[in-house]
Amino acid sequence: MSGPAITPSGVITLLTDFGLSDPFVGVMTGAIISRFPAARVVDLCHGIEAQAIAQAAFWLERCFPWFPPGTLHVAVVDPGVGSERRILAAALLGHYFLVPDNGLLGERLLGSPDARVYAVDLPRLGLPPASATFHGRDVFAPLAAGIASGAQDLEQLGVLAHARPCRLAAPLARDGSVVGEVVSIDRFGNLITNLDAEWRPRAAHVLVAGVRVPFGRTYSEALPGHLLALVNSFGVIEVAEREGSAQRRLGLSRGAPVELVLDPPAASPADARS
Amino acid sequence: MSGPAITPSGVITLLTDFGLSDPFVGVMTGAIISRFPAARVVDLCHGIEAQAIAQAAFWLERCFPWFPPGTLHVAVVDPGVGSERRILAAALLGHYFLVPDNGLLGERLLGSPDARVYAVDLPRLGLPPASATFHGRDVFAPLAAGIASGAQDLEQLGVLAHARPCRLAAPLARDGSVVGEVVSIDRFGNLITNLDAEWRPRAAHVLVAGVRVPFGRTYSEALPGHLLALVNSFGVIEVAEREGSAQRRLGLSRGAPVELVLDPPAASPADARS
Amino acid sequence: MSGPAITPSGVITLLTDFGLSDPFVGVMTGAIISRFPAARVVDLCHGIEAQAIAQAAFWLERCFPWFPPGTLHVAVVDPGVGSERRILAAALLGHYFLVPDNGLLGERLLGSPDARVYAVDLPRLGLPPASATFHGRDVFAPLAAGIASGAQDLEQLGVLAHARPCRLAAPLARDGSVVGEVVSIDRFGNLITNLDAEWRPRAAHVLVAGVRVPFGRTYSEALPGHLLALVNSFGVIEVAEREGSAQRRLGLSRGAPVELVLDPPAASPADARS
Repeated sequence: MSGPAITPSGVITLLTDFGLSDPFVGVMTGAIISRFPAARVVDLCHGIEAQAIAQAAFWLERCFPWFPPGTLHVAVVDPGVGSERRILAAALLGHYFLVPDNGLLGERLLGSPDARVYAVDLPRLGLPPASATFHGRDVFAPLAAGIASGAQDLEQLGVLAHARPCRLAAPLARDGSVVGEVVSIDRFGNLITNLDAEWRPRAAHVLVAGVRVPFGRTYSEALPGHLLALVNSFGVIEVAEREGSAQRRLGLSRGAPVELVLDPPAASPADARS
Repeated sequence: MSGPAITPSGVITLLTDFGLSDPFVGVMTGAIISRFPAARVVDLCHGIEAQAIAQAAFWLERCFPWFPPGTLHVAVVDPGVGSERRILAAALLGHYFLVPDNGLLGERLLGSPDARVYAVDLPRLGLPPASATFHGRDVFAPLAAGIASGAQDLEQLGVLAHARPCRLAAPLARDGSVVGEVVSIDRFGNLITNLDAEWRPRAAHVLVAGVRVPFGRTYSEALPGHLLALVNSFGVIEVAEREGSAQRRLGLSRGAPVELVLDPPAASPADARS
Repeated sequence: MSGPAITPSGVITLLTDFGLSDPFVGVMTGAIISRFPAARVVDLCHGIEAQAIAQAAFWLERCFPWFPPGTLHVAVVDPGVGSERRILAAALLGHYFLVPDNGLLGERLLGSPDARVYAVDLPRLGLPPASATFHGRDVFAPLAAGIASGAQDLEQLGVLAHARPCRLAAPLARDGSVVGEVVSIDRFGNLITNLDAEWRPRAAHVLVAGVRVPFGRTYSEALPGHLLALVNSFGVIEVAEREGSAQRRLGLSRGAPVELVLDPPAASPADARS
């Protein structure tokens, strides 16, 4: 059960719903470098919608591979702060993860054969007393400094554990279609879904808000002002409007259903009848 | 009057009202590292409301302890840029500060027994001519590089001085209550007040926008959609709505009064009559 | 044609229209440091309006000198992502630049006598296959790591090329006035124009949205609530409202015309007649 050892890279990514208008990210960074001055802290994203665990889980599993092996990814979207929810530290696929146990670790992460997940035994660590409202600074930052500096072995943080099921709903495959949802809407109004690119070869078009959207390969394949669906750079299907905003055009928000209509299977007597 | 020497950590925090939509923070960072390549620049916060000195003073005094000793904290909220306002460099409690002399240094900082405050003698320093509108880049950045790199002693920047009074109003203690105000509203709509946690043991409840708000210890002690008051992670009293926004619920903005209603003192004849 | 060699400083600035609410900047940073761990990545600005090439070209040419010599400036505002537009790598005035060939390099940059511009020969470089939608991560990041680390000489990236004309319109000089436009509106509502400071000595006042705005030297020279024009810290003329927002006051947006009314030339018979 103990996977291969991972050498910390000294890089720590932060993924939160703190936003950037308040000093919370700055102070959490200060708490990290106070304990681990050589830490390289990268702001992965602080624009997760408040308490949107599924959105954070999506970006965490789609973004971590772009960082150096041995990076520690700290995700703090934590509606349960101050209550008794556990904190998990994990090692998998050559990276470290540190999260509240609320579904932030998705299937693609936990399903990795080398995944080791530990429930952090906070009392054992002797941290200074934590505030009731800011565990990013008081608990996650010192833990992150310890793990990323190599001073703290995961095995000594707590016991092996199972993470709570991920909040990121899996798409539902039906007869002739797959129904997923909008998991994130980017600055350009592109609708990013949880429909994996692996469905693309079998897909005919996308149905969203009652509109049939054809597939293209790049934004520039659509005419300006026209919608298209494509496989985006994070390996999922996205609905975009060329030189416009699909969100504004379709009036959708996060969580809206998106249906991938599949090509009919190769001709068969049943098809011939329809 | 000369406090203990402080060894610069090489860390520089930036606290401004520049926002992040323009290149001002980036350019100020460039001006710092052009003179001090090894500087570690941390964005403490750039979301201070335009020219809101009191809000910046609050966050400065509540956030600095979370950084390593020897950190230089540069705060640029500077409505007087281009006029004759002074620039102050200070050393206190093991940290450095660099600010325009407009009330950004609060009582908790200036009241420190080891505080040394210098009025920077700009002509003596021989900086290149400053623009009329961006002293963050032209004056504060080169000064910061000098102080944080250890190249520039505070004593040689200018003469000892008294800072202008802080813009952060102190709460007003009345008979049976203390009246403070909302100094910052965070991304989650939590109302952060200038009422120090030291009042909490004597407090019965909070009165804000005509609503009586009970105390709790953590957000999770309130029912979803209910208001509660608590001591937050920066040592002040905060009004929050569980899984909601107290700001939206109460319709308040920065500066709104918040009353802390105290428990009556232990029974006395006067109490018995009421 | 080969200018003086430039020693990379290891600093990479990023200027994009990605915004900060999504993880795009974080992932691009991860892709850079995965290949060049010692890179110093500075976020110059990610608040360029979506696909606003002229706005980005303006800030790029006005901001780069504030970084150390040998800095690489990467600008990704790229409506043509996924199409066949070229990528340019340039060296000039002691700095490096990496941009899509869509007009991001302005006259002040390309006009430098030492400017060398190369069209990157992507197939030759053997990068992993790029996604169709995120060349910032898949193409610009690895190129940036190569250039900024010194591993990749510009000469070996491709052949010398001419950049496409800049999207930043030059002001139009007429009889007695110069007409420019608002190229950027900052967080304070200041209207930043493309009218260079060199016009200032001949200028009488500014005409914008039908309002005659007098010149001052600093914001503090106007009365609160009054408009003034001044030479700002980036060497262009700006229209501001003291302790207010010129944008809100005048109701303008990016691209609005701004007229600089010139002083009449010294008296002459022709003037005497009018």
